[in-house]
Amino acid sequence: MGSIDKTSRMPLYFQLVELIMKDIEEGKYLENEKIPSERELCDIYQLSRVTVRQAIAELEKMNILHKEHGRGTFVSPKMSQTLQKFYSFTDEMIKLGKSPSSKVLSFDIVKANKKVARKLNCAIDTKVFEIIRLRYADDDAMMYERTYLPYHRFEGLSKSAIENYPMYDVFRTEYDVIFSKAEETLKPVTTRDYEADLLNTNPAIPSMKIERITFEDDAIIEYTISIARGDQFEYRVVLD
Amino acid sequence: MGSIDKTSRMPLYFQLVELIMKDIEEGKYLENEKIPSERELCDIYQLSRVTVRQAIAELEKMNILHKEHGRGTFVSPKMSQTLQKFYSFTDEMIKLGKSPSSKVLSFDIVKANKKVARKLNCAIDTKVFEIIRLRYADDDAMMYERTYLPYHRFEGLSKSAIENYPMYDVFRTEYDVIFSKAEETLKPVTTRDYEADLLNTNPAIPSMKIERITFEDDAIIEYTISIARGDQFEYRVVLD
Repeated sequence: MGSIDKTSRMPLYFQLVELIMKDIEEGKYLENEKIPSERELCDIYQLSRVTVRQAIAELEKMNILHKEHGRGTFVSPKMSQTLQKFYSFTDEMIKLGKSPSSKVLSFDIVKANKKVARKLNCAIDTKVFEIIRLRYADDDAMMYERTYLPYHRFEGLSKSAIENYPMYDVFRTEYDVIFSKAEETLKPVTTRDYEADLLNTNPAIPSMKIERITFEDDAIIEYTISIARGDQFEYRVVLD
Repeated sequence: MGSIDKTSRMPLYFQLVELIMKDIEEGKYLENEKIPSERELCDIYQLSRVTVRQAIAELEKMNILHKEHGRGTFVSPKMSQTLQKFYSFTDEMIKLGKSPSSKVLSFDIVKANKKVARKLNCAIDTKVFEIIRLRYADDDAMMYERTYLPYHRFEGLSKSAIENYPMYDVFRTEYDVIFSKAEETLKPVTTRDYEADLLNTNPAIPSMKIERITFEDDAIIEYTISIARGDQFEYRVVLD
């Protein structure tokens, strides 16, 4: 068990937040298990009730713990995303019993820079849509996404369509897209301060960066970079 | 382009390391592309040759850049691990043209704790092997791995076997294991100081935590937790 350093400049409640996160990480408390009561935590760590409450409140805000009325405080399960078949954030959230929504932060037509051109397999400076969105599960921000789409394939695409319908539904119904496959690349990254702000999380917690390219036959019709909260998702794959 | 803050307490060379990493991250310099020369970097960032050299040396040590004699300094490609079929570190490194090796840091028989028991699907306190290894590609430490194996299935397993042969080869030849499948879970995590020391990397760079359980028919015969350097690997999956 870690311990609290009362001489540290780091606030006590924050030290407790980190200790509890480490205990969860190391399997001392498993998902859906009850953690010790506030009173017990006060005894274990020799902290005041106020400090313990502040730590628990912080962990609740981060969706790491949740209270069940009259039963105690429990470790919230991570959302497990199986990487096997083509999926959409919207469908996955519905499967998990969450209510998905998105907020379009910006919707622009821009010129493809070097990286975007490479990913969409087009020339540098080709016109592309750039759509930046925050994706929510219930009312919690979960992912920050930047999507690039070839302009010529989605001419006429409007911000309001993207605001009001799942993007892939718009592709299918308005543009007759038939997805052939997608490729995703996963990498752990530092959460930048502005991303942490938008995602209402702690910048000390790394995020998963997921880059997706989506194919229609052999043509690439989407390049999306997602920054997903590292404390909320895990990615699962079955190897045969 | 970011800039150098000469009033910051952070060393100048380290600021340049971070700027170059950000430029690579954002696609300003792509994999296998040449970055500006030392002289050009001095001009761009208004830094001394000594500082620029120190930053480049640091990035070379981290395997992020490499020099090609007489040609310049290039962005090193990440090792791309495709998550589709059953793979071993040894085989993957060989495919990438690297020479894999391992160092066994510890080899013990211990009692399964709560998390290990849950993963191996056995009772708490069951006897298990705990094998801690560092995995190398050429001479660079790439992963820190803790493996748990049910004692009853691998009775007689010796440290020297694990030191001298690929683990899965030992399983197959000495214990007639036929793997049926494996499941992996990926999650971005903060690199702990001792892990960064062992992996000879910067603790500010997050790592990928990969948990694998391996099946023989329906029985789980391995639980491995890998901490893989986030600056060296990316994980790729094809979604159909």
